[in-house]
Amino acid sequence: MSTPPESTPAAAAEPVLRVPLGFRWGAVAAGIRYRGRDDLAMAAADAGAVPTAAVFTRNAFAAAPVLLCREILAATGGRAAAIIVNSGCANAATGPQGMADARAMAAAATAVLGQPGADPAAAAALPASTGTIGVALPMPKVLAGISAAASALAATPEGFLALADAILTTDTVRKTATAAFDIDGRTVRIAACAKGSGMMQPKMATMLAFAFTDADVDPATLQAVFARAVDGTLNCVTVDGDTSTNDTAVLMASGASGVRVEATDGATDGGGATVLAAFETALTAVLRSLARQLARDGEGATKLVEIVVTGAADVAEARTAGLAIANSPLVKTAIHGRDANWGRIACAIGNSGVPVDPDRVSIKLGPLLLFANGAPLPLDEAAALAVLSAETVTIHADLGRGDAGAEVFTCDLSARYIEINGSYRT
Amino acid sequence: MSTPPESTPAAAAEPVLRVPLGFRWGAVAAGIRYRGRDDLAMAAADAGAVPTAAVFTRNAFAAAPVLLCREILAATGGRAAAIIVNSGCANAATGPQGMADARAMAAAATAVLGQPGADPAAAAALPASTGTIGVALPMPKVLAGISAAASALAATPEGFLALADAILTTDTVRKTATAAFDIDGRTVRIAACAKGSGMMQPKMATMLAFAFTDADVDPATLQAVFARAVDGTLNCVTVDGDTSTNDTAVLMASGASGVRVEATDGATDGGGATVLAAFETALTAVLRSLARQLARDGEGATKLVEIVVTGAADVAEARTAGLAIANSPLVKTAIHGRDANWGRIACAIGNSGVPVDPDRVSIKLGPLLLFANGAPLPLDEAAALAVLSAETVTIHADLGRGDAGAEVFTCDLSARYIEINGSYRT
Repeated sequence: MSTPPESTPAAAAEPVLRVPLGFRWGAVAAGIRYRGRDDLAMAAADAGAVPTAAVFTRNAFAAAPVLLCREILAATGGRAAAIIVNSGCANAATGPQGMADARAMAAAATAVLGQPGADPAAAAALPASTGTIGVALPMPKVLAGISAAASALAATPEGFLALADAILTTDTVRKTATAAFDIDGRTVRIAACAKGSGMMQPKMATMLAFAFTDADVDPATLQAVFARAVDGTLNCVTVDGDTSTNDTAVLMASGASGVRVEATDGATDGGGATVLAAFETALTAVLRSLARQLARDGEGATKLVEIVVTGAADVAEARTAGLAIANSPLVKTAIHGRDANWGRIACAIGNSGVPVDPDRVSIKLGPLLLFANGAPLPLDEAAALAVLSAETVTIHADLGRGDAGAEVFTCDLSARYIEINGSYRT
Repeated sequence: MSTPPESTPAAAAEPVLRVPLGFRWGAVAAGIRYRGRDDLAMAAADAGAVPTAAVFTRNAFAAAPVLLCREILAATGGRAAAIIVNSGCANAATGPQGMADARAMAAAATAVLGQPGADPAAAAALPASTGTIGVALPMPKVLAGISAAASALAATPEGFLALADAILTTDTVRKTATAAFDIDGRTVRIAACAKGSGMMQPKMATMLAFAFTDADVDPATLQAVFARAVDGTLNCVTVDGDTSTNDTAVLMASGASGVRVEATDGATDGGGATVLAAFETALTAVLRSLARQLARDGEGATKLVEIVVTGAADVAEARTAGLAIANSPLVKTAIHGRDANWGRIACAIGNSGVPVDPDRVSIKLGPLLLFANGAPLPLDEAAALAVLSAETVTIHADLGRGDAGAEVFTCDLSARYIEINGSYRT
């Protein structure tokens, strides 16, 4: 069996001291659902409409703000001036009223920001919502909140953290990550935040993730890089296999660093490939850190579970097998109970749809090889208990079919998940 | 939205007083895993090899006894003389040793039954196992148990119930169902039992189900009727979305009633179509009852949840949508918490892969219409609480795409499921 890739350390969970240039952020307590905390936030680009990449849920019941974001970005060719987001109400499965509310929310944000001279269409704000499905937004509170949020905008770490906090729902901790790299003496910065704890198996993005950079990138390149980075990070998280109606990940690029990031064809590369690679590496590290933070804070979770699949014929089947393990309630409850019941991992792989030959499959729990080439090995219960008692548990499955691999992030399944979700709405 | 089909009452849970002619059953405490209860059972046809239909798991890690059953039935052209089954050990993911053990178990059963004059191949016993994955069978106990079980065989209801009890693992109640119909003054009987509580989402069958009839049916017809009946019943149960490595459903037909059941081409039908229809109706009712009993006794379950999907383009997509609802941990926890959070049902439908138009979807909880043609309706919380407080909860989703429908059986998700599965092995 091949060696699992080294686990990359999470991006530092240090206070976000450096935020990208060219943006302001702010949040207010609009009283939408929660008491005594911010629940409405805004992010605005100083330059008005800037290149903006986004990926959304593939749920057929996509929420009204998701439908409107797609419409806006198609109309502007991948540009937006702001993001306006609320927690406490998902504005999903809300019919025509929900669509009208999303439009009013976006229009109000555009109006209060005032982008004189800008193309009104391109200056649009992207709306996002998260919370209970099937309930209408309390629009008077939302509209009052938008005015207040515009007054609270600041180009500071505190402003960015206010956004990161305001979007949380059942999350127990704030999720942020930052990265920076230098090119010719100039610094490019990326800062991103996310929320998501239950109803989490992003198909295109996680529930909500907002990323900002001061790199100078055209919309098409930004979208391509963002989509690739999301695919191996935020799209590899699952808490409970339920893809939300509101999944939205947005990356806005202000260009304020003065560093141009360009797609190159290789032949005419004057250092562009290096800059692009540095940008993609930094962005991927930021999103991977968010992905791990999201999994660790899954509803009721006590552990982060990292599933490394190797020996797959291609990345897609590595992810399929990894998600099958990650979504098995039996694997998740066994890890919660610190029970090295690895047969459930084999069972999950067998159910994944990947046509494995059991005689070529191997399974490791942390450093312990438990099943090799179709047969069980003696289990050292004490060593297994030690592995399962750590806060991060790594499962490694080698499928014995090829050279491709993937990682998937999830958490254990505890009685607390049942408690949280038996009473979320009422 | 169309009216949901009437819920058919479960087959009577009365004591099994009438069992099919031509079989003997028995069980013993072999000490495989459990103390103080039977864990090894046998069923034998008086006539030696009789027509036997079977369906098995589609898990790629199919257990050794499943692989051997497939081999035996292919060799005998759909005939077997006996079933030998143990609980407490699944004999799955056990490598070459597991295959050798399954062969020894089947051979021992054939030997102790002694079918003088019968073709030894056709007189084979079908092995089945259920319990922990990745652990070898304790063969001395199994072989001693097989001898003892052969001595315990009886053509009585008590013998049949001993089989039904011996196969249980985390099940909390025995699952049996029977049916009978008369043709020209002769009675055809069907009796079936099943086990399964967790790791339950049969793809071809449930974990273990054994059915017996004294109808006289050729192997090909028996297999065709059984596969159809399983498809809409046992294959429509899910507890946790995990398809086991050991799913096996077997139907043996002794012919002892003297009633011939034949497939007909319609043109040459001399009443055959009526007998076939009566047999298939009775068999389907028996298996549907077992399916409901399995779902109701899902690990940690407090409620049976029946999901009725209508308005689908075909049965397959109705089942896909129904299983998506049934496997959503958010739907299951909301029902457990008696929270009418129907937005989670919409979300699950949206995730199912069925290309629904939200504006044509309707959702009912019991008799309460909550979401119609893409928009929420006012929710009567008191009425919803009453519906959710019953032991059986019905969800009806109309997809607005066509005229096909399906039903799926599941249960709620409770903290007890986590408890059971955090410590099953240890």
